[in-house]
Amino acid sequence: MATRRFSATDPDLDQLYQRLSEGSLQPLWELSGLLTSEPRVRGVPHRWPGSELRELGSRAGDLVPVDRGGDRRVLACCNPGLGGAPYAVSTLWAAVQYLRGHEVAPAHRHTPAALRFIVEGQGVWTLVDGDALHMGTGDLVLTPSWTFHEHHNPGPEPMIWMDVLDLPVVAALDAVFFEEGPSEDADTRTAARSASEGWFGGGPGLVPVAGPPLPQHRSPLLAYRWADTDRALDAVLDTAGARWTTLRYTDPVRGGDVMPTMRCEITRVLAGASTDSVRQTGGRVLCVLHGSGEVHIGAERFDVAPGDILAVPSWTPWSVHAADDVDLFSTSDAPVLDALGLMRVQNLTTGQDGTAARGADHVTALHPHTTTDLSGAHR
Amino acid sequence: MATRRFSATDPDLDQLYQRLSEGSLQPLWELSGLLTSEPRVRGVPHRWPGSELRELGSRAGDLVPVDRGGDRRVLACCNPGLGGAPYAVSTLWAAVQYLRGHEVAPAHRHTPAALRFIVEGQGVWTLVDGDALHMGTGDLVLTPSWTFHEHHNPGPEPMIWMDVLDLPVVAALDAVFFEEGPSEDADTRTAARSASEGWFGGGPGLVPVAGPPLPQHRSPLLAYRWADTDRALDAVLDTAGARWTTLRYTDPVRGGDVMPTMRCEITRVLAGASTDSVRQTGGRVLCVLHGSGEVHIGAERFDVAPGDILAVPSWTPWSVHAADDVDLFSTSDAPVLDALGLMRVQNLTTGQDGTAARGADHVTALHPHTTTDLSGAHR
Amino acid sequence: MATRRFSATDPDLDQLYQRLSEGSLQPLWELSGLLTSEPRVRGVPHRWPGSELRELGSRAGDLVPVDRGGDRRVLACCNPGLGGAPYAVSTLWAAVQYLRGHEVAPAHRHTPAALRFIVEGQGVWTLVDGDALHMGTGDLVLTPSWTFHEHHNPGPEPMIWMDVLDLPVVAALDAVFFEEGPSEDADTRTAARSASEGWFGGGPGLVPVAGPPLPQHRSPLLAYRWADTDRALDAVLDTAGARWTTLRYTDPVRGGDVMPTMRCEITRVLAGASTDSVRQTGGRVLCVLHGSGEVHIGAERFDVAPGDILAVPSWTPWSVHAADDVDLFSTSDAPVLDALGLMRVQNLTTGQDGTAARGADHVTALHPHTTTDLSGAHR
Amino acid sequence: MATRRFSATDPDLDQLYQRLSEGSLQPLWELSGLLTSEPRVRGVPHRWPGSELRELGSRAGDLVPVDRGGDRRVLACCNPGLGGAPYAVSTLWAAVQYLRGHEVAPAHRHTPAALRFIVEGQGVWTLVDGDALHMGTGDLVLTPSWTFHEHHNPGPEPMIWMDVLDLPVVAALDAVFFEEGPSEDADTRTAARSASEGWFGGGPGLVPVAGPPLPQHRSPLLAYRWADTDRALDAVLDTAGARWTTLRYTDPVRGGDVMPTMRCEITRVLAGASTDSVRQTGGRVLCVLHGSGEVHIGAERFDVAPGDILAVPSWTPWSVHAADDVDLFSTSDAPVLDALGLMRVQNLTTGQDGTAARGADHVTALHPHTTTDLSGAHR
Repeated sequence: MATRRFSATDPDLDQLYQRLSEGSLQPLWELSGLLTSEPRVRGVPHRWPGSELRELGSRAGDLVPVDRGGDRRVLACCNPGLGGAPYAVSTLWAAVQYLRGHEVAPAHRHTPAALRFIVEGQGVWTLVDGDALHMGTGDLVLTPSWTFHEHHNPGPEPMIWMDVLDLPVVAALDAVFFEEGPSEDADTRTAARSASEGWFGGGPGLVPVAGPPLPQHRSPLLAYRWADTDRALDAVLDTAGARWTTLRYTDPVRGGDVMPTMRCEITRVLAGASTDSVRQTGGRVLCVLHGSGEVHIGAERFDVAPGDILAVPSWTPWSVHAADDVDLFSTSDAPVLDALGLMRVQNLTTGQDGTAARGADHVTALHPHTTTDLSGAHR
Repeated sequence: MATRRFSATDPDLDQLYQRLSEGSLQPLWELSGLLTSEPRVRGVPHRWPGSELRELGSRAGDLVPVDRGGDRRVLACCNPGLGGAPYAVSTLWAAVQYLRGHEVAPAHRHTPAALRFIVEGQGVWTLVDGDALHMGTGDLVLTPSWTFHEHHNPGPEPMIWMDVLDLPVVAALDAVFFEEGPSEDADTRTAARSASEGWFGGGPGLVPVAGPPLPQHRSPLLAYRWADTDRALDAVLDTAGARWTTLRYTDPVRGGDVMPTMRCEITRVLAGASTDSVRQTGGRVLCVLHGSGEVHIGAERFDVAPGDILAVPSWTPWSVHAADDVDLFSTSDAPVLDALGLMRVQNLTTGQDGTAARGADHVTALHPHTTTDLSGAHR
Repeated sequence: MATRRFSATDPDLDQLYQRLSEGSLQPLWELSGLLTSEPRVRGVPHRWPGSELRELGSRAGDLVPVDRGGDRRVLACCNPGLGGAPYAVSTLWAAVQYLRGHEVAPAHRHTPAALRFIVEGQGVWTLVDGDALHMGTGDLVLTPSWTFHEHHNPGPEPMIWMDVLDLPVVAALDAVFFEEGPSEDADTRTAARSASEGWFGGGPGLVPVAGPPLPQHRSPLLAYRWADTDRALDAVLDTAGARWTTLRYTDPVRGGDVMPTMRCEITRVLAGASTDSVRQTGGRVLCVLHGSGEVHIGAERFDVAPGDILAVPSWTPWSVHAADDVDLFSTSDAPVLDALGLMRVQNLTTGQDGTAARGADHVTALHPHTTTDLSGAHR
Repeated sequence: MATRRFSATDPDLDQLYQRLSEGSLQPLWELSGLLTSEPRVRGVPHRWPGSELRELGSRAGDLVPVDRGGDRRVLACCNPGLGGAPYAVSTLWAAVQYLRGHEVAPAHRHTPAALRFIVEGQGVWTLVDGDALHMGTGDLVLTPSWTFHEHHNPGPEPMIWMDVLDLPVVAALDAVFFEEGPSEDADTRTAARSASEGWFGGGPGLVPVAGPPLPQHRSPLLAYRWADTDRALDAVLDTAGARWTTLRYTDPVRGGDVMPTMRCEITRVLAGASTDSVRQTGGRVLCVLHGSGEVHIGAERFDVAPGDILAVPSWTPWSVHAADDVDLFSTSDAPVLDALGLMRVQNLTTGQDGTAARGADHVTALHPHTTTDLSGAHR
């Protein structure tokens, strides 16, 4: 209340304001900016170039041991609009993690959930509650809330990948818990196939009648492989007769998002095509896997290349124009907004609006078809 | 009320009984067998040998044109205990359908849902609401309630497959509707891949954000291919380190059974292994896809071979002993019993009982692991 | 197959039919009436007059002790179209039960669920798993599947009420189990308020955070009192500015029908008003609580009075015209048809059709308003 | 990064840090406090005395016209630990609103949801999308997300009540939208009963089959009356034979919390009794309706009286000891934490821990009974 809006010289009001202040109270009529006609978003559109992320990751690998500070060698994307907070958008942490050959990042767990998306390279293993998952180009690997996870690189080559966490959301809810793993020694197991994939990665709709108990709130499948994703993208484009499409990664047993706080999607745009321009409430992080073109976010236009990470702030339209075939991974906080009844979507190309229904989180209606209801159970 | 339990010579009671009868009323105390300590099941364990089904199907093909009587050349399995009703168990119709080369079975639809399971052969196409699905060995093809469906055989070879319908259930509810297709001419389209599979048959958990509207009550995926099923069976056996396992066919987008009235499962038993002996409320139909061995149903023991269809009546224990590796397809009315809170399961090998929870239709706990909760949304 | 449709004199076909018969197989093309364009309903519209039910109940009370045959003095309504089966419609048992002063009907339980609706009188107590529920005029009392229940009449006056059970459905699924109570001696407890009502019968939407575990599949509230129902009917009519309306009895904690097999509703029609004429798949039983008028069922017209029980067969339109204010209790198998995707509704007055969505069991669209989605969870 | 943890004098690292800073990147190993073993909660336990709130509200009424600043005369509770932010706890806005006789607060709507709880007085009307709801002592009145709402006071007496909003959560998600009402003139309607209550406020479990469409994400019932709440509290205490209990306000049609972001509960503690000491993730605001006693929050002890508002920060134990019979209204962000899988509960009195399941938001296990599953559908 640096400045007062009313009656600056009224001694009675002065006294009231004094007593309110002493009583840890504030008068609403002196507060502004609380209820705005549209979201007042501080985050700005931004691009972190993949080439620079790789180079700085490598440089950090040379200079900083992995065991310093959180046992992870991570560079966090800081949205320039967020005043120095280490967040890519106001609700998502995005970063690159760099692991040199023969390095290990030992086990810990935390209530913020994380996902790993690999733009290039292979050979590192992530263990999630002891289940060894190989990481390779185009794969999505989940380390859900409160699962122990660790990484080890048995080979000589370094590897870099993108991490996205829901840390800002969990922190805003005062619900961050953290625990070191049971051992300081890394578990350097590998496996031809993770148990998660052995049980739940079968063909579409095929699930074991008996097996490990299904985890609450999240997918039992922890790795989504590029070979499957690539084939599914082709099949949908072919079936739709379309030039671009978006797939969502979902729980293969119960449907619904892979985790309750982060929606994962992948968009393929064939050379020359452009997606619709869409905005929705909540933030989004993009990561270019293949191809080049332009990504428009609000009034900004970014030329993109593989490895680029981009920030799409809340209620900011974005679209992609592909110079050559583009594959674009994307994470958003949409499950949170859906669950709380706060999702709004506006397709600026088609003019369609949408307020997503709970249990109907088909909010990214990028595509000129009827929107699929991808909600699921997760009871 | 042929015989009276009480007061056979009391004239007052005679008069009361007379008035009750005139008033379309019956005295409960004269009725017996209504509430029995365990289900009084009239269906009996039975096997229809595959060799005979093939031979009789072929013979029918020689003698009976396909366009007679429902436009289908179908032989229905009649459980000997059901007094001539054309049902394999009291709640399921099972049959073989035989289509000669170049024959067509034109479109119709009905509220009873059907599934097709192919034991041997290929080359026939089933169109479901115009979507062309190829049928080949080991495939499961769905023609859900009230979808138009037709079959055509463009090649010279005849083909036979198993049909299972929920007809007894729908009939008991007085809810049978039927409609001829819009045209008498068959639609003889084929397609390299059905639209159903193009949209919803991608890798595990990968679904399009926008696409055709999801159907209510049932899976949007209409064909489950043997190559996927075979690979998933191997993966689960390998991951579990087990000698036998059961997979359920589910809705790949929302989870849950493929149709609201019929549960579809496939069991692989490696040579020399035996499944647990389990019984549950409701009926089941088995169909041997591969291998040979013994199927025990109640007190009966059947030597089985590919193409055999078997009836497992309600509350009757069944198990499989594999001589060589056995693949056994299975359909039950379990979704109905689950939805109505009437499912009971008893594993006679492990001694475990279960009353399945609604929204937890993991009822066929054949496997010595924790049972997977395969319930889904289908909202 | 008394008569053959084809080739009556073809010896090859004779031989095939002979072999089919020996093999427990039937040719579909010789079967007729399996798939009909509309449901072939055997049950017929019928009325059992309340005056007669009371008189015959009383006469049975004079002549037949309560402990004979099922420990209940019950007269079952037998629909004249059902060939002697003791069912009011093909999926519902309806009956009157008569208990003389100082009589008891000891505890048992069965998987078929039951409900009691009291047209007149009071003073009998029903114990459900030991919870004592008083029965009075206009009350609905539930004895859900597999709950022990018993009745006792501590006073001198006899009492009669209507029982409805889902017995035909449970029997068709071969899922009837029955068990005598732990003791032959009746538990003659009474209570100022049942525990069920104490915990879950509070104001609308008020439920205890901690209490007895919620039962699966059904409402934790076991009695719905007339005073509440009467007041709610008035409030809705007044708010809607309507002359007739229907309320559904639902689970007050999780929403949805009170039991998974039977929907309970009450319709109030003010003097001179008529309800829409509506038909839906599945059967219904009506019971007149107050008032007189005409009930039209199909082509039949019945003059009705309190205590009358009426049968509405599947897919048969029905409506009510009130001479003086009518209150009409109604039970149907609609939750079953909803769960299985088999519900169809047609309002012949407004011309609106409906196929009810799963999770949207708003099927009895009797009212010219937007239909309320009354589906619930029952997980 | 004011201070550096590593290699403060390494010029290579200096250069890396310089480049990271230029690239809007931060090294994780220099960040601390992101992942803490337990939530690092800035909010502190606090009490705003009811007497002071009433006095300052009245004084504001004398000095400040209602039409200044947001059209509401509101004093916001500012938790002393939150650095001046006008929030009672980090996720909830709590305030008192004061309306003088004959004043109006005209219509607007916003995505943050609000509730009103009345400690004392009556006579003001809140209109929610045009439905007139009277406000009286002990009533809970909802103005859900994006519903137009306005208040008018037709009588001469001023009135004060508590407002709670989920504003901090909606703001953190960049999802605040606001709109003025269609007219600057207040709608001064009153009604003997709101339409919301007429349709959905009937007896427990009684809901109209047809009526206004059910709103998504929230209860269709907008007012919970003290007479109902009081009676339900008595009934539960009596049935449980307990000295204290907590009721939750839920959607009477579908179950589940009244709004997706705020859980509303009321606790009655009889004179001399104490509740368990419980902590859970997420913040809570208490408001004393009746009685006096002690509220313990963390290490603080507050003597309380009617009208007091108290802040319970995340993961801080709280309990109540009643000097005379206490009724305590309570709001928390628990539905958010439940939906995101972030709810943890610890009962320090009984030693029981809990991680609430999604769809099982029985998180405030204050009571020594089995916890009720109060989850609902809201589809």
